Amino acid sequence: MALWYDEVTDDAVRFGLKVERTLFMGRSEFQTVSVIETSAFGRALLLDDLWMTSERDEAVYHELIAHVPCTTAKRLERVLVIGGGDGGTVREVLKHPEVQHVDMVEIDGLVVETSKLYLGTIGSAWDDPRLQVTIGDGIAWVKRTDLEKYDVVIVDGSDPVGPAVGLFNEAFYAGCKSMLRDGGCFITQSESPIMTKPVHLEMIRTIGKVFGEAHPLYGPVPLYPSGAWSWTYAHTGVDRFAVDVVRAARIEAQSKYWNRDIHRGAFAVPNHIKQALAEGAL
Amino acid sequence: MALWYDEVTDDAVRFGLKVERTLFMGRSEFQTVSVIETSAFGRALLLDDLWMTSERDEAVYHELIAHVPCTTAKRLERVLVIGGGDGGTVREVLKHPEVQHVDMVEIDGLVVETSKLYLGTIGSAWDDPRLQVTIGDGIAWVKRTDLEKYDVVIVDGSDPVGPAVGLFNEAFYAGCKSMLRDGGCFITQSESPIMTKPVHLEMIRTIGKVFGEAHPLYGPVPLYPSGAWSWTYAHTGVDRFAVDVVRAARIEAQSKYWNRDIHRGAFAVPNHIKQALAEGAL
Repeated sequence: MALWYDEVTDDAVRFGLKVERTLFMGRSEFQTVSVIETSAFGRALLLDDLWMTSERDEAVYHELIAHVPCTTAKRLERVLVIGGGDGGTVREVLKHPEVQHVDMVEIDGLVVETSKLYLGTIGSAWDDPRLQVTIGDGIAWVKRTDLEKYDVVIVDGSDPVGPAVGLFNEAFYAGCKSMLRDGGCFITQSESPIMTKPVHLEMIRTIGKVFGEAHPLYGPVPLYPSGAWSWTYAHTGVDRFAVDVVRAARIEAQSKYWNRDIHRGAFAVPNHIKQALAEGAL
Repeated sequence: MALWYDEVTDDAVRFGLKVERTLFMGRSEFQTVSVIETSAFGRALLLDDLWMTSERDEAVYHELIAHVPCTTAKRLERVLVIGGGDGGTVREVLKHPEVQHVDMVEIDGLVVETSKLYLGTIGSAWDDPRLQVTIGDGIAWVKRTDLEKYDVVIVDGSDPVGPAVGLFNEAFYAGCKSMLRDGGCFITQSESPIMTKPVHLEMIRTIGKVFGEAHPLYGPVPLYPSGAWSWTYAHTGVDRFAVDVVRAARIEAQSKYWNRDIHRGAFAVPNHIKQALAEGAL
């Protein structure tokens, strides 16, 4: 008998992978954490039974969330990653030799420990001496006034239910902005433009309110509902299309998805989203 | 008990929709044809139990396959559509008032009849007097020497198994090219860059051999394996980025997905595909 695991969205759509075996299943104070070996996508991480990342499809998500801000920030010395417990985002950030220090603030220590044990190909930079991992609350972190500011702030959180719910409101985005130097960049995952369009639109509007403008970008993540995913980018004084050519060329030599054409193309906004934003509709 | 229908790929990945009811199920000499009412995606068409299109997600596919060639062809009077039995592609093509005549050549009359009965929101242009539907073989059609040439040739076929298998080889693409005037455009769906990467790469190479160059483009189609889909574009003497501004503005006023930014952005090629094409790897 074949075993499958399906993530079901709205009791109406499901995406499933055939399961070879369960490698880990545990419960933290925040959520259940599981790692399963799938036939098609390699090892996959689930939080509260929702697909988070897999060995086969993780590159698009992690390269976009890291390199879109890291190739456009004016300086690139200090980076803050909130969430990102699987380690894929910091792995990409740390490919930039200009980066001197990365603070990663992940609320759930079990996610980090599990990823270190079972998802070593995704989190392959845990030993980089520039990386400081703090198990703690990202919402509290961006309220701190004792920190040196950052060039890039990346929010790599899960969906707006459970432990990540506080990562989706104006106060939090204002905190993120306050962490940035001038010429800095902010990015967050911002849900599916198809399956969770109202949340997606609301995030763009709220971030736009805080930063003055906000720019969604899009890419394929088969594991997530509808396979179409988004991130939203904002900044404190840069041009999002003015990619640093030295940083870009270095990344293009090793990336699976990101390159300068993809960078520009990802910012193209589907007409129905453009119209909804213009009309103020959800 | 809830009923679901899942399309399974490689016995390892599946995409499923909850089914409200089956509206039609029949068998032609070529394939089984079904229409089901789903909770999340409205009515959906399946051929040989594979998802083909749905009311909710069809716009991306049909707008890209129609407007990418129709906004870049030098003239836009005569269009040939091979396949496209659901009627979505010709509906988009016929939104261009410059179009004087469309030949649609669909091998399976049952697909057209079923779509007319059950998918009227997708095929909403069947009565346009500029449209000539022929139930016949597209492979034979492009061998004809008695036809006036076309400005745009669109291949809207299913996967390279079953009745569409002959739409994936050099002789067929050469036939399509022979149907084009100078300044004309060709486009075909070209499978998933993730789930069927070898077929995708082979199509780009073969079309490139026939036309001198071939350009893949990408967009999200949740219903198809991985949700990431591709088309491949070639031409007989145009610039794929030189969109006709009058045609484009007209379409942008009514499209759900396509606009000039999306047009340009869709042509951005993921790094792993770029590398594979450069290296000649599958």
